[in-house]
Formats: sequence, C-alpha cells, structure tokens
Amino acid sequence: MEKRKIIAIDMDGVLADTDQHFLTWYERDYGVRMPYESLLGKPEYEAFPVEGAIRKMVFTPGFFRTLPVMDGAVEAVKSLMQDYNVFIVSAAMEFPNSLNEKYDWLAQHFPFISWKNIVFCGDKSIIDADYLIDDHCKNLDNFKGKPLMFHSAHNVNQNHHQRVKTWAEVLTAIKEHHHGIIEKID
Amino acid sequence: MEKRKIIAIDMDGVLADTDQHFLTWYERDYGVRMPYESLLGKPEYEAFPVEGAIRKMVFTPGFFRTLPVMDGAVEAVKSLMQDYNVFIVSAAMEFPNSLNEKYDWLAQHFPFISWKNIVFCGDKSIIDADYLIDDHCKNLDNFKGKPLMFHSAHNVNQNHHQRVKTWAEVLTAIKEHHHGIIEKID
Repeated sequence: MEKRKIIAIDMDGVLADTDQHFLTWYERDYGVRMPYESLLGKPEYEAFPVEGAIRKMVFTPGFFRTLPVMDGAVEAVKSLMQDYNVFIVSAAMEFPNSLNEKYDWLAQHFPFISWKNIVFCGDKSIIDADYLIDDHCKNLDNFKGKPLMFHSAHNVNQNHHQRVKTWAEVLTAIKEHHHGIIEKID
Repeated sequence: MEKRKIIAIDMDGVLADTDQHFLTWYERDYGVRMPYESLLGKPEYEAFPVEGAIRKMVFTPGFFRTLPVMDGAVEAVKSLMQDYNVFIVSAAMEFPNSLNEKYDWLAQHFPFISWKNIVFCGDKSIIDADYLIDDHCKNLDNFKGKPLMFHSAHNVNQNHHQRVKTWAEVLTAIKEHHHGIIEKID
C-alpha cells in the first residue's frame, strides 16, 4: 500500500478568512468600511490607512478566536483527510497570545483534527510534508514539497507559485498533481 | 560554505528536568518523598503509587511554567547555536494548557532562542531536522535524521538509540557524529 502523503495547511488566510476579519474589525474600531479591493497587493501591515491598525488587532485578545472560517474549508479538509495525512501548521509563535485562541478555534471549527496533527511554529522550513497550502511566499519559497499559494489580497502580485483561489481549487490541484506523479511512476 | 545542520531539541525531560519536578510535586501533594530510583524503567504515568497523580500534575496550571532547567542545558544550547540551527520541538499539543507556560518558560530560561525556532506540535514525524534530542522512543523511532535518546528514568531499559546521559554527552555525541560524516565525505 502506498504510504499516505502529508498535506500541511496554514491557518490565517487559508483555513480562516483573515482579510474579512481585518475589514470587520477595522470598521468596528475606526468607523470606516474599507472595500476589499483596497487591500489588493499590499503587505498586510500596510493595507489600512491607520498606521499600526493591523498590529493592534492581532495583539488584541479574541482576534484569532473569532476569525470566520474560510468558505469551503471544513468540507475540503474532511475530504482530504480521507486520502492524506493532514497537518495544520500555523506560524503562531509570532503572536504567543494566539496560541490558546488558535487551539480553541480549531477545536470548535475542525473538531475532527487530532491534537497530534497540529503544529504551531515560527519558521516553517522545519516542516517535512508533501504539500503546503499557505498564503505567504516566505513560507512556500523554501518548502521542499509541492507548494500551493492560497489566494489572498496581499499576494495577488506574486506569481511564482501555483495559485489556488478557493478550497475547491485546492482539491482539484492536489488531485491533478497526485495523478501526475502516479502517471510518471507508471 | 556548508549549510548549517538543524538540531531539534525536546523540552520535557531534556531541557527541563521533569523527573525532579514530579518527585517534588508528588511530595508536596501526597507527603511522600519517592526516591528517584523508584521511577526507573516505568512509564511516566505508572511511576507513582497514587494512580492518576502524574496526569493530575500535568493538567495543573503552573506545572510546566515552574519546571527546573536540566543541568547544563542553557550553556549547551548556547554552544550548539554557534554551529547549528537549533529548534525547540515540544509535543505541547497533548496539554494545551501548557502552550503559554512553555512559551513563557523558554522566554525566561532560554531568551536567546527566537520565536522562529520554537515548534509546539503533536506527532513529531512531520519535523525535518538532522538531529533530534528526545527522551521518548515514540518520537525518535520514526525520525529521519540522527536520533539521540536523552537519559530519563522512564527510558533506562530502552537501548535501540544512542543514549546521552548529560548535556555534556550531547555535545560530544554531536561533535563525533558530525566529524564521522565529514570524514566519510572526504
């Protein structure tokens, strides 16, 4: 039997819709509803007019705990788990206040993922997996397996990784890549 | 220039002297000072007469935050960091209450370790490193690099990995292994 391939999945911007949460909290705190389009192509920390707004949000208790789930993520991860070993790999160490919130968020929205398959880290170069689904090129660039760049406002101008725009596209991309490998072996 | 090798280091039983902490807390809670020798060769959860004592301790707030540092660990890690990329890799997900305590403990005792080099995980098979220093065979058995088993009361009867009894022995073992590889290449 073929050994199960390992898929590593990022949280912020991939399982969780961080962009929508930024827009919602920004409106709540500063009274201005910014259009999604205003975020396009900007590093997250420079995407809003009020300087330091993002940094303040990510260090506010509750931010990570209340993130909305990305459309289609729950069903897609369940589907991938039928054929792959799925690990959640989040760069949570940058925001130590987020550790427990992220753990509780996963327990609420993805209760079918075992604690054995959760990784909170800093630098993701230490992760050994066959696929990495992430919205940040800094994580994808040094990955040894197949990188998939999850579409996000901040990465619209990055084009050196295969882009997946939705969770449906993730499933298709992995299926096609996997079949490509098997055909090469056969 | 040769790329820096990566050393992954476990926390409990390796950077932190968990056995001593179990003995201290057991005496505090149950009034009996068990001799260290009574722990030898027993799985940690079965090492004390009162059933469930260990489980109760590891779920008590403060347990992980107040662990004593293993003799020689601070200086040895500093020394290794001169020549290697050192990552701290702890199976903290088993005890989610420990996440913040472990982070704060590292910040206090190993402030020279960047958040980028800290990994809290469950199953360590996803870790890609050249060395793993750990006291549990379940972590060492599937490791793809060079495993070093840090001596602990519970592992005295395990002999299928190279045993290192102290942090001084860790430094020697890594030096000798590294030189062995270089000689083979030359």
